[in-house]
Amino acid sequence: MGSKRSRDTERETVNQSGNGPVLPPMFDRYRDLVEGRLKDAAPEGGEGSLPALMRYHLGWVDPQGQPAASPASQGKALRPTLCMFACEALEGDPAVAAPAAAALELIHNFSLLHDDIQDQDTERRHQATVWSLWGIPKALVAGDAMQSLGDLTMLQSEGPPVPPEVALRVSEILTEGYMEMIGGQCLDLGFESRTDITTQDYLEMIAGKTGALIRSAVHIGALLASDNEAATQAFAGFGSHLGRAFQIRDDYLGIWGDQGVTGKSTDNDIRRRKKSFPVVYAFEHASGASKDELLRIYGQEELDDPDVLRVMAILDELNADGFSDSLTQASAQRAVEALQGVELPSWAREEVNGLVDFLARRLY
Amino acid sequence: MGSKRSRDTERETVNQSGNGPVLPPMFDRYRDLVEGRLKDAAPEGGEGSLPALMRYHLGWVDPQGQPAASPASQGKALRPTLCMFACEALEGDPAVAAPAAAALELIHNFSLLHDDIQDQDTERRHQATVWSLWGIPKALVAGDAMQSLGDLTMLQSEGPPVPPEVALRVSEILTEGYMEMIGGQCLDLGFESRTDITTQDYLEMIAGKTGALIRSAVHIGALLASDNEAATQAFAGFGSHLGRAFQIRDDYLGIWGDQGVTGKSTDNDIRRRKKSFPVVYAFEHASGASKDELLRIYGQEELDDPDVLRVMAILDELNADGFSDSLTQASAQRAVEALQGVELPSWAREEVNGLVDFLARRLY
Repeated sequence: MGSKRSRDTERETVNQSGNGPVLPPMFDRYRDLVEGRLKDAAPEGGEGSLPALMRYHLGWVDPQGQPAASPASQGKALRPTLCMFACEALEGDPAVAAPAAAALELIHNFSLLHDDIQDQDTERRHQATVWSLWGIPKALVAGDAMQSLGDLTMLQSEGPPVPPEVALRVSEILTEGYMEMIGGQCLDLGFESRTDITTQDYLEMIAGKTGALIRSAVHIGALLASDNEAATQAFAGFGSHLGRAFQIRDDYLGIWGDQGVTGKSTDNDIRRRKKSFPVVYAFEHASGASKDELLRIYGQEELDDPDVLRVMAILDELNADGFSDSLTQASAQRAVEALQGVELPSWAREEVNGLVDFLARRLY
Repeated sequence: MGSKRSRDTERETVNQSGNGPVLPPMFDRYRDLVEGRLKDAAPEGGEGSLPALMRYHLGWVDPQGQPAASPASQGKALRPTLCMFACEALEGDPAVAAPAAAALELIHNFSLLHDDIQDQDTERRHQATVWSLWGIPKALVAGDAMQSLGDLTMLQSEGPPVPPEVALRVSEILTEGYMEMIGGQCLDLGFESRTDITTQDYLEMIAGKTGALIRSAVHIGALLASDNEAATQAFAGFGSHLGRAFQIRDDYLGIWGDQGVTGKSTDNDIRRRKKSFPVVYAFEHASGASKDELLRIYGQEELDDPDVLRVMAILDELNADGFSDSLTQASAQRAVEALQGVELPSWAREEVNGLVDFLARRLY
């Protein structure tokens, strides 16, 4: 078992009740367009076929290839939504961005399929993972297929025409983005056995593993609407900061989420030995007996309840939750600032604020 | 352990002595240009890093990241060579095709990296496989990285300019090609446990697993030289037939190769339980006691010497070697015919013949 971060997937499907900010309307606004694109892109196939495995991973069908009873296992489609929003905010036609948005979701899901193999995770989004049902070889190939389907969806746009030089640039940004993502994944693998990771190392790793594709999503959406270099670069910067805020919030929720900040469950990312941001922070800042305890506890193959509670107590002592949250809020603030010089319609400016607020303060 | 085909890789590096046809000069002619491109594309990196793993897989460095003592573990670069040749044969500048050629080699190698994981092969091209040295998670990610490096190399051409609509079309063909390749790989996984695969099933599988990327290589080279639809389609067809001839010859050599057709080694693809073409043919055509024996032998986890010799005797009875060879020669013939309607300079026509002859009759 690894010490991997979960990106956004584990908590994507928890219901939206509670006192946190509600899902911004842009998620619903683009959903049909993106899903339509995705469903057009993903081929049909019988039980156990490559298309059936991909559709299962996307939450559309059950292991037998029958339509899933509830769409509960689908994510919130953050990357496609960001791509479509960036396009519309710069007064582009969101339909132009739909193929790219679908491609981003496929690339994201390719990375999750392979992540699950690497981390030996048996469950994702409340369903058994592909490798755990069909074995590593098939899951590996299903991930490869998902990735090339993403590329193809981007290249074979049947929507409104995009000038070929823009289409090429967009493909290049997507490819660079997932290349960086893969680099981050590799860094993360190297972190597994280490106890000397600094928060700086960690931030560099998530800038690749999570941040690159989020940045690409926003950048691509902007490029499909505008040839204003300053504006598209500003959107790319917005995406970078947003990605960091998003991931650190995710890490926070992995420890203090679900039960709210007061009820402390021991069934959390600490139990799973994930070296998420608060834990990396604790390793960096703990000293004396606390540091010794952390080293002892994370030196074990499995953590029991007292171990988890002890780690949580050390995180408390060090104010790891407060520090994580303040870094999230600071990144969110920088995201908003990145767009300050860009001329945006007032609805879009408001939605930027709502989106950033949601991602930085969400409870799920 | 699987029943996988080896594609061309195992025999790529056997030395070229013997009585078979010699390697056509085009392989040497394009080598420097392709290798230069590849070396530009692949980043440098320290021991155990993603770039070092990729460079190791490509045969350039040893496991410690030091330059390899001999280039013995490098393949003959079939796909890049075909791409460059198709371009030059249609009077294009081969330098224009060099980025695509390098991309094809990277995509091919991405598939080999993942193949090795799937097949649990511990050796390829006379060196330990990446997963066997660094583990499955790292090898998986190295394959993913190799694939995106391939895409990127195609998109970020720094060579002679290619019109964006051609560049897009080429990217699309590459992506469709490796998507088909992945589909073939998945079919192949399904074959592992089956004893009822027909030669038709098999030919369909290799059309994807081996044929698609070879066809794409030729098609892309042609498209980078010419906008004559009939000519470029003819080259694509040439590639399809060539891919089939190539793979069936490879399967033949996997059983009767190296020692020549008389000296029968038992250290061959039968020992490795590969369901290659001659074996599939035997399963399809054997009856009575021979069929029962095949079923019994392939029902075992491991084959011993008497098993291997018995299978070879059954192949002999059924003339599986003669049939494999005649199918190779027929495919080679169709490859040559596919180009008959295309106007080619006489040097190119001669080289087509030499190439086809080499691939269909090679001893390594």
